[in-house]
Amino acid sequence: MTYNFSAGPAVLPKAVMEKAQAEFTDYQGLGYGIMEASHRSPEFTAVIETAEKNLRELLNISDDYAVLFLQGGASTQFAMLPMNFAQGKTVDYVDTGSWSSKAAKEAKLFSNVNVAASSKDENYSYLPAIADWNLSDDATYLHITSNNTIFGTQFHEFPQVDAPLIADMSSDILSRELDIDKFAVIYAGAQKNIGPSGVTVVIINKDFAAKEQENLPAMLSYGTHIDKDSLYNTPPTFGIYMIGLVAEWLLANGGIKAMQEINERKAGNLYAEIDADDFYSCPTNEANRSLMNVCFNLATPELEAAFIAEAKTKGLVGLKGHRSVGGIRASIYNAMPEVGVQALVDFMKEFRVNN
Amino acid sequence: MTYNFSAGPAVLPKAVMEKAQAEFTDYQGLGYGIMEASHRSPEFTAVIETAEKNLRELLNISDDYAVLFLQGGASTQFAMLPMNFAQGKTVDYVDTGSWSSKAAKEAKLFSNVNVAASSKDENYSYLPAIADWNLSDDATYLHITSNNTIFGTQFHEFPQVDAPLIADMSSDILSRELDIDKFAVIYAGAQKNIGPSGVTVVIINKDFAAKEQENLPAMLSYGTHIDKDSLYNTPPTFGIYMIGLVAEWLLANGGIKAMQEINERKAGNLYAEIDADDFYSCPTNEANRSLMNVCFNLATPELEAAFIAEAKTKGLVGLKGHRSVGGIRASIYNAMPEVGVQALVDFMKEFRVNN
Repeated sequence: MTYNFSAGPAVLPKAVMEKAQAEFTDYQGLGYGIMEASHRSPEFTAVIETAEKNLRELLNISDDYAVLFLQGGASTQFAMLPMNFAQGKTVDYVDTGSWSSKAAKEAKLFSNVNVAASSKDENYSYLPAIADWNLSDDATYLHITSNNTIFGTQFHEFPQVDAPLIADMSSDILSRELDIDKFAVIYAGAQKNIGPSGVTVVIINKDFAAKEQENLPAMLSYGTHIDKDSLYNTPPTFGIYMIGLVAEWLLANGGIKAMQEINERKAGNLYAEIDADDFYSCPTNEANRSLMNVCFNLATPELEAAFIAEAKTKGLVGLKGHRSVGGIRASIYNAMPEVGVQALVDFMKEFRVNN
Repeated sequence: MTYNFSAGPAVLPKAVMEKAQAEFTDYQGLGYGIMEASHRSPEFTAVIETAEKNLRELLNISDDYAVLFLQGGASTQFAMLPMNFAQGKTVDYVDTGSWSSKAAKEAKLFSNVNVAASSKDENYSYLPAIADWNLSDDATYLHITSNNTIFGTQFHEFPQVDAPLIADMSSDILSRELDIDKFAVIYAGAQKNIGPSGVTVVIINKDFAAKEQENLPAMLSYGTHIDKDSLYNTPPTFGIYMIGLVAEWLLANGGIKAMQEINERKAGNLYAEIDADDFYSCPTNEANRSLMNVCFNLATPELEAAFIAEAKTKGLVGLKGHRSVGGIRASIYNAMPEVGVQALVDFMKEFRVNN
């Protein structure tokens, strides 16, 4: 048995992978795969409509919001957001890691960016307290990254602010209950918790979206995609199909509430093992620890390399920390089963005894 | 047996679909699918490098060119090209159909667009003769659409011009031999002749690319993707894997030269049946007929609807013409086997006799 702790693209639910495999070359008796079907066909129309409907049900998304399936990853959203909504205007960004920082960098091409808070001073090992953020009076929006994949931090509460709130939730969307109405825009590259890479899910308030800049290139305008229900041009059809299957699997397994409980148990199990003594240590401020990406260190880089190598022989893979920080990182998204986390915890105990 | 004549997303080679299915949940003994592997993993690194190598071999692409795997479809290229290379400059566009026209429309947001020729006057049923194009003296580039999916026309020779030549080859790349060195940029949405939707292949001359506009959003700069070998952010990994398999299949089946011969036979067979008498008619100027998208009409829309419905009962699907023009369209890309075209021709004969 292999357990894949990759940060993304990441493990997908086993039942989803098996279903997609079974109908890969013959989708529901069509005689060919859904990958080979026209994006205007009745079969794919049902796929994309169902994927959207399931996401709406999972996250309780009202009709005030559009749910879009776009391309280009969160990195494209970094540019589209200021391009659509804040050209020449002031925007607030909270800098909690590499991705926040890249988002702010793109915004600087179009907007007056105020970095309202940053934890760069301590290598992003904590999240600046919301009460201390230096917010602008006239921000067009406030941008945050809800979970920082590389550094293993996660917002467990969200700011209550006047400015429209925009969140990059690439690495924790669908992992916990969420009040969508608190946000103007939520966006997420699918490849961590929703599906394969190549699709970006955007949940956007329609009133907010209506304020977009005029004369944008069609593909870079949210309005285009809202008007055409993500079918302005050929969308990444197979990725959307996979998202639909993942959403169906979540609904069949108790939805987001059940998933959140499991995610809390998985992360609790792993952090408890890390905290058991000084053999393992977690670089992240305890109150800000992520339930999705659990980062930890051993005494030396050599011991960490030995841990990673030996874990691999036990079928525990994808544990190497991001190249910018090193150490160990276990990404334990929705699709990582509890037995996978338990196998890692068991190995951690064994490795401690032997080293 | 089902034969899928969809214009795109379109049929993929049967052998490719079966291979992808076989290793969908366990890629080469990895214990999980390539879709679930990190884009920085050795496994995916080999996938993307091999896909690029195979495309270079198939099209004889020199090191003067970068081969990129991007997102957003041809529609995103429509904007990226003028944004990168022609802000405030003059560009020539040849208008041979809906896609050419959309490309020019996006360019107008950034550039002074000269429509050098157009066949809109006769509903795009022909291609304006190259000798008659009204080219600018100082065009930063000349843009053409090599094959017009909706109207069934295709350039069988390319213009020899001073300006850098850019071609949207979404619907005929890899279908025929090509002298890459004649082009500054070739781009193609993958979903017709290369792989699934969600990946755009861009072949770009590096010297030309070096002239790009400064201070572009990272994802909208060709330079970003050239510098990072298409791995600036998470690419559409599964789509790239599929492209690699398709390219491998093409190489194993004689490469582009063999494919061109087969494509000529397939199209020849179909046009011969259309031309046999007046029961079927082809709206396209004979010299400009596409080898990829064969458009034809019957006497009335009612008869066309009956043709499409009856064809479907015989396993011949995806034959409805684009909603903007109606009629019948058989898309016969590389992956459509000769027996599939023969089955369609047999049905056409039968339908003629019975109606």
